[in-house]
Amino acid sequence: MPRERKEGMHRDSWVTYRPSIKVLDCTIRDGGLMNNHRFDLDFVRACYRACCAAGVDYMELGYKADKALYSVNEYGPWKFCDEDDLRRVIGDEPPPIKLSAMADVGRTDYRRDILPKEQSVLDCIRVACYIHQIPAAIDMINDAASKGYETTLNLMALSTVSESELRTALAEVVENTPVNVLYVVDSFGSLYSEQIRDYVKLFLRYAGENRDVGIHAHNNMQLAYANTIEAIIAGANRLDVTIHGLGRGAGNCPTELLLMFLKNPKFKVRPVLECIERYFFELQRSIPWGYSIPYAITGALNQHPRDAIAWMEGDRPNAIVEFYDRMLE
Amino acid sequence: MPRERKEGMHRDSWVTYRPSIKVLDCTIRDGGLMNNHRFDLDFVRACYRACCAAGVDYMELGYKADKALYSVNEYGPWKFCDEDDLRRVIGDEPPPIKLSAMADVGRTDYRRDILPKEQSVLDCIRVACYIHQIPAAIDMINDAASKGYETTLNLMALSTVSESELRTALAEVVENTPVNVLYVVDSFGSLYSEQIRDYVKLFLRYAGENRDVGIHAHNNMQLAYANTIEAIIAGANRLDVTIHGLGRGAGNCPTELLLMFLKNPKFKVRPVLECIERYFFELQRSIPWGYSIPYAITGALNQHPRDAIAWMEGDRPNAIVEFYDRMLE
Repeated sequence: MPRERKEGMHRDSWVTYRPSIKVLDCTIRDGGLMNNHRFDLDFVRACYRACCAAGVDYMELGYKADKALYSVNEYGPWKFCDEDDLRRVIGDEPPPIKLSAMADVGRTDYRRDILPKEQSVLDCIRVACYIHQIPAAIDMINDAASKGYETTLNLMALSTVSESELRTALAEVVENTPVNVLYVVDSFGSLYSEQIRDYVKLFLRYAGENRDVGIHAHNNMQLAYANTIEAIIAGANRLDVTIHGLGRGAGNCPTELLLMFLKNPKFKVRPVLECIERYFFELQRSIPWGYSIPYAITGALNQHPRDAIAWMEGDRPNAIVEFYDRMLE
Repeated sequence: MPRERKEGMHRDSWVTYRPSIKVLDCTIRDGGLMNNHRFDLDFVRACYRACCAAGVDYMELGYKADKALYSVNEYGPWKFCDEDDLRRVIGDEPPPIKLSAMADVGRTDYRRDILPKEQSVLDCIRVACYIHQIPAAIDMINDAASKGYETTLNLMALSTVSESELRTALAEVVENTPVNVLYVVDSFGSLYSEQIRDYVKLFLRYAGENRDVGIHAHNNMQLAYANTIEAIIAGANRLDVTIHGLGRGAGNCPTELLLMFLKNPKFKVRPVLECIERYFFELQRSIPWGYSIPYAITGALNQHPRDAIAWMEGDRPNAIVEFYDRMLE
């Protein structure tokens, strides 16, 4: 089964693997959108240990949100990723995994809150923005890079952006920043495999030789895992996953599924299964993430999942016909 | 987003559609594997009406199983598809949908139980077999075709068959029968998109101009819908689905997801959503189909789902680490 990117002497094949593929687990960051990042330390430590033992390359522990905008009473520590909280997760041993935090354009006091790299356990700052925020994102990427971090651009809601605007945005970012990874982000869970392939190929042209392309998929239409595989085939090397798919609404590409697919022997699924068994089945009783038909409807209609999330949290989540009719209005 | 098959003057694209695509809903047949086909008449009628209103092309109402092998006390009417039972479903109006039943090689007394077409409401007999049963399948296909039915070959457990054996089997069937459709059947839910594409292309070479290729996917690794789309792109025209994914173990490609994807305006998803809302959420409390990690493990290991089904029906379905360790033994 040929892959489209060559590496070394051999064509990619499903019996070989591409060493440049890196997995980023964002369970705490994306899953925290379901509970205002109020995970307790024991849970975050368990996920951290599972990711380390599983051979995951990066773990994202939360957001660097501005405390002037978000109350520390309302939001848990993983909304802010203070150094003391991060160090409580990793303990005294040097992490065998790279750590990242996400910084949203307009919601991060980055000049103050993103510390120089030598004062932080973080390795990577991921800058998330919408298309109209590209100039601000460029400033944030340059700020983080100058402080010593790896950086990524996570351009959200791609499915609402015209191709010409997207090309302009990508050109601006690669010309004006040292960004390391350009992410294809399917915020609405609305993209089909052919679209994923076309986006990854477009992003690869702007990434050039020295940057990677990443994929962040959502499971609104049961396509998060399939679209992640499709992105791999098209050449994406940075893959976002969450344990048991924990994430906003329908959730994300499950870490355990991707690790069973990837052939690099450094990846081990068993530590992730242990973590799921011990923590996630219980968690599912209080946080209702995962695929449901209202998410499929917003995904198929290329709409933000907020209406589906509100419907699922309401009194009549099973009234799917009324939800469908409303979404078509 | 180009499709790989041309039709008429235009290349396929996701803004156009391929009129030759036909959807087959096998909710009652595949879902019946979860309850010995003991659905009550009201439920089967509701699914039938939903499929008719949704523009689905074929509906499969069950198996033509041999009553010498399966007790009518233990199994419900959709295991046998007697004419009287079928007619109770469709009522007095001529069906706006074609009807099929599945006949398993070795489990059907086909010379006796498959009636001449003019005595039956069925339009299509789907012959399911494993690779070693191809000679018997050829006999059954010819029997059904001579009685006036459309026929399909549903070759199960493809992922365990070598390519040379598969080529021999396909050549034998197309040379020696008038079969209308050759189905790619992912019985174990173990196939990835590239494998689906390669199988569909191989099957298309044997199908030639006058036969179609079909896809029957399972959702063990959350890939049933994605693999069905992949099969469409590769040229498959006959697509198996079930309402809300109801089917053995992890279930199937959901009818509602596929109908939201297909662009032919004859397809309507709303009747399917109505049927789900009225019947399926309730049914899910008594029949536990759908994606769970044990199914993903058997799928990833290319194993029959029987061990996962037994585990999910046992006392400790959440003991996924023990299940994983056992499957690796």
